[in-house]
Amino acid sequence: MSEADFPVTEFEGRADRAQRLMREQDFDALLFTTEAEVQYFTGFRTLFWQSPARPWFCLLPRTGKPIAVIPQIGAHLMASTWVDDIRTFAAPHPTDEGISLLSDALKPYAAVGMPMGRESSLRMPLDDFERIKASLPGTEFRDASALVQAVRHVKSEAEIAIHREICQIASHSFENASNLFHEGQSLTSAFRSFKIDLLERGADDVPYLVGGAGQGGYGDVISPPTDAPLQTGDVLMLDTGAIKNGYFCDFDRNFAIGHASDAVRQAHRKLVEAVYAAAAVARPGKTCADLFNAMTGVLGQADGNVGRMGHGLGIQLTETPSLTAFDTTVLQERMVLTLEPGIDLGDGKMLVHEENIVIRDGAPEFLSTPADLEIPVIQ
Amino acid sequence: MSEADFPVTEFEGRADRAQRLMREQDFDALLFTTEAEVQYFTGFRTLFWQSPARPWFCLLPRTGKPIAVIPQIGAHLMASTWVDDIRTFAAPHPTDEGISLLSDALKPYAAVGMPMGRESSLRMPLDDFERIKASLPGTEFRDASALVQAVRHVKSEAEIAIHREICQIASHSFENASNLFHEGQSLTSAFRSFKIDLLERGADDVPYLVGGAGQGGYGDVISPPTDAPLQTGDVLMLDTGAIKNGYFCDFDRNFAIGHASDAVRQAHRKLVEAVYAAAAVARPGKTCADLFNAMTGVLGQADGNVGRMGHGLGIQLTETPSLTAFDTTVLQERMVLTLEPGIDLGDGKMLVHEENIVIRDGAPEFLSTPADLEIPVIQ
Repeated sequence: MSEADFPVTEFEGRADRAQRLMREQDFDALLFTTEAEVQYFTGFRTLFWQSPARPWFCLLPRTGKPIAVIPQIGAHLMASTWVDDIRTFAAPHPTDEGISLLSDALKPYAAVGMPMGRESSLRMPLDDFERIKASLPGTEFRDASALVQAVRHVKSEAEIAIHREICQIASHSFENASNLFHEGQSLTSAFRSFKIDLLERGADDVPYLVGGAGQGGYGDVISPPTDAPLQTGDVLMLDTGAIKNGYFCDFDRNFAIGHASDAVRQAHRKLVEAVYAAAAVARPGKTCADLFNAMTGVLGQADGNVGRMGHGLGIQLTETPSLTAFDTTVLQERMVLTLEPGIDLGDGKMLVHEENIVIRDGAPEFLSTPADLEIPVIQ
Repeated sequence: MSEADFPVTEFEGRADRAQRLMREQDFDALLFTTEAEVQYFTGFRTLFWQSPARPWFCLLPRTGKPIAVIPQIGAHLMASTWVDDIRTFAAPHPTDEGISLLSDALKPYAAVGMPMGRESSLRMPLDDFERIKASLPGTEFRDASALVQAVRHVKSEAEIAIHREICQIASHSFENASNLFHEGQSLTSAFRSFKIDLLERGADDVPYLVGGAGQGGYGDVISPPTDAPLQTGDVLMLDTGAIKNGYFCDFDRNFAIGHASDAVRQAHRKLVEAVYAAAAVARPGKTCADLFNAMTGVLGQADGNVGRMGHGLGIQLTETPSLTAFDTTVLQERMVLTLEPGIDLGDGKMLVHEENIVIRDGAPEFLSTPADLEIPVIQ
């Protein structure tokens, strides 16, 4: 997400929305240690986060641009973003992995916000974080999770356009299922074929591809594939988080191998109907709980062991909010969400279905091409 | 890395080595929150870590098997590992995301070790970690980074066999370069072709693929590809971390498009010579610093802005130790390392070369097929 991904106005808008909330909530600066937040506010996009070796820091003061406090190895790439103030340290380092530099950068601020709540993590050594706090005894470190999540909930049309592109790529790959999957094929091979198809259609990467297959349903929705061959009567499910320019799609499709039992066909219809029931109430001003309740109303049961029935979507596979009975986040235009109803079929079997939508002034826009009521059968 | 990946003896060995060190260092239990550690000790392997929504916990007591404290959605997959004691919580949850369950699980232990040092992070909300500590006022939480790293430094032959397989897959893809890359091709397209080739040859995934291209060298080694076309005189570099059964390769190759300048050819030769100089001293009993010094001795300069000249390799793209002047970790048989010398060519240009080796009793084993002295030219 360098300037090549977005004009500078995109990043100015993000900083501005965060800074308005910072003034309301009395934060002098925000401190970020995690990939998503550093990428969101600076435009710094790299797979180098795969390496746990070095910490990366970004500060957003109450006014002005973010400040990057990063390892030397990132200076060249960070200079391609809209950030001007780039402070680098040698890393790995025997004793001071950016800590004194970060402490200096934080000195001007009395109240520092960090994501410390729901869905957050600290991507730096805990011991180093304690050193930072000890070096700044007058500084208050407070949770800013809700602030950051509120800024990220609403996407720009530029972001939505990328979501639409990757969702369409994945929709086309799923439409190509009969050429990719067949009886007797190992699940590993099915996953590989699907991933290659996504890449050939223009996905930059497929960081997330999970699923399962089994007679009349599958056991969970988070397993890697096995070498077991697809058999007649299996339901095959693939759930993919593919990316384009750093933005995810996240939806699945179910396929019946050879034929579908009545129970499977009925469950599939119910899941699709649940999605439409949620879409029918998905309007600005409604809540996440309203969507959850619309889906459970159709299904007549809770959430099939997944714990929720959808979530936010963006530069992370899953973002807040969550579609649960207790999440009362109010829907706003340009929120990108997944609708993900699941059915527990008993005997340790389940079926899950998922679509990606944008909240609009009126009916939501489907980013994924919505599935048919009838489960597709692969002959 | 379920039981399908390894026999139970593999996991028993890991736990046993950690538990011996725990007794020496007076830890009653280790607490893990991060993907690599949970995977390493339990065998729980899923891409679901891509979702930041839910925390996952694993405890390793001083005796016996690990204890999993995880969201309900993971129960089915965790039950396929060697872990028996699986405690699940509802997640997302409005107020208690596994915290009271984890607090109960930690109660029997007075001294709890966690990775808090170099290369570690805390994959749970900081506020929840503070709640855990407050709920257990008599419990001491201490850094156990060095302990965990020491256990993970040395691989089993079963792990090395998987490393060898993925390194050979990537070697074959690089050998296929002349069919994948050509003048006029965008870097994005080159990356896509390479990734598909890796998948077709049996890689499970390609979580890491970075690189660059430029006249006489490139600016860094962490950038995503651009749409700029490859031109005669460019050096193209691709650095890949592909995986098989959860284990990474991590090496790069340089290619000259059309022709190579004398400066580029000489730099490439020096980098390959630096790798061999390191391999010549890479024996049990030597240190990481010895390898670093062997490489800088050939290059006549430090590290080309990368900060180190190699690192550990395993279920993470980069693991400890680091090949730096200050890392005095003693090499042991079956450590898997990358050798990654870089040269700063001035004018913001660099060249980096990387191989993967296993420390053996005698000369190291190359997992990647070593590059020739001469940079390959793509016509």
